[in-house]
Amino acid sequence: MNIKDEKVSIGAGTLLAPVPAVMVSCGDAPENYNIITIAWTGIINSEPPITYISVRKSRHSHALITKAGGFVINSTTKPLTSVTDYCGVKTGAKENKFETAKLTPIPAEHVKAPLIKESPVNIECKVLEVKEFTTHDMFIAEIVDVHVDKSMMDLKGKLMLDQAGLVAYIHGHYFEVKREAIGRFGFSVMKAKTKKRISREKNIKKMRKK
Amino acid sequence: MNIKDEKVSIGAGTLLAPVPAVMVSCGDAPENYNIITIAWTGIINSEPPITYISVRKSRHSHALITKAGGFVINSTTKPLTSVTDYCGVKTGAKENKFETAKLTPIPAEHVKAPLIKESPVNIECKVLEVKEFTTHDMFIAEIVDVHVDKSMMDLKGKLMLDQAGLVAYIHGHYFEVKREAIGRFGFSVMKAKTKKRISREKNIKKMRKK
Repeated sequence: MNIKDEKVSIGAGTLLAPVPAVMVSCGDAPENYNIITIAWTGIINSEPPITYISVRKSRHSHALITKAGGFVINSTTKPLTSVTDYCGVKTGAKENKFETAKLTPIPAEHVKAPLIKESPVNIECKVLEVKEFTTHDMFIAEIVDVHVDKSMMDLKGKLMLDQAGLVAYIHGHYFEVKREAIGRFGFSVMKAKTKKRISREKNIKKMRKK
Repeated sequence: MNIKDEKVSIGAGTLLAPVPAVMVSCGDAPENYNIITIAWTGIINSEPPITYISVRKSRHSHALITKAGGFVINSTTKPLTSVTDYCGVKTGAKENKFETAKLTPIPAEHVKAPLIKESPVNIECKVLEVKEFTTHDMFIAEIVDVHVDKSMMDLKGKLMLDQAGLVAYIHGHYFEVKREAIGRFGFSVMKAKTKKRISREKNIKKMRKK
């Protein structure tokens, strides 16, 4: 099979998709709290959990994160998309984005940067290393704690992240993720018996909701 | 505002979401071609485009990628979710996953690993550096070319990636991304005039489709 018959080359580019669209909060005191929107982020290591964000040197948040040695990754939802975009376009050098975007800072537990109250998931990160690349610097950081909004937990204390309507970034656009999962990890090889049990549990849950 | 009143701590974990669910193809000859499913991936640098994948040392693909110095990231869609999951659960040490998952390898242009024909986007990557962490090794790689399926291009040669129905990974589950964008980068500060022009262009496109 020949590549030219099936595919079109569009050249080298950052077309990995979908990637997260998150708001990263930073600063070390209320007067310099800032928010930068980031799509260049991901998980690097599972145990301990290690993540990264890539930030241009020219960005106002670059110096804030370098100085404080920590930041918070705040996930985004459809109602937050407009302020997410706003925080990616505007610079914190000229305005306090918590004020202009009407977002609420909450002091974190382990880092100096604040959490964003309106976000369903807040990930506290401590910088381990800064790795320089040409356009971006990569802040490699350990995840030291994760907070979720109380509305994200069901009555049994189980996380309902599927109900958050999280937002992804694809090729310059923001998209909401559907709320119905296609399947869980391992579903393709799951035994019929296990599938039945899970489906039964789901139905019980649905009935309880009614 | 107090963190305990608004949020619940669930401890440190890899809860960044949504992250990509991609199939990474590797190997350097048809007899050792393999596929591994990866969610720990992201963009690190824009120019040149640099990405990474994090892979456990114990995985069969780890040695293949190390030896060949390259791999291909293949994006996934709803119809591909079951084989995506399958390629993440099974090991290439015991089977040829292209055969068992009924996927079609196409020789790439710049690396020895093949593209997966059924995937809408194929990203050819050359390894720049392997950075070791505790559970995973991070393969930092330059994106040297991107191929898209011919069905992804409209008549004017514009990429319609929003129509792919790409798949994300959230907290152990696979989710499809909605096909209607919430907005493009910059929409929150876009002038009314620009918004009108874009909406007009969209309507013309829709009429042409009919």
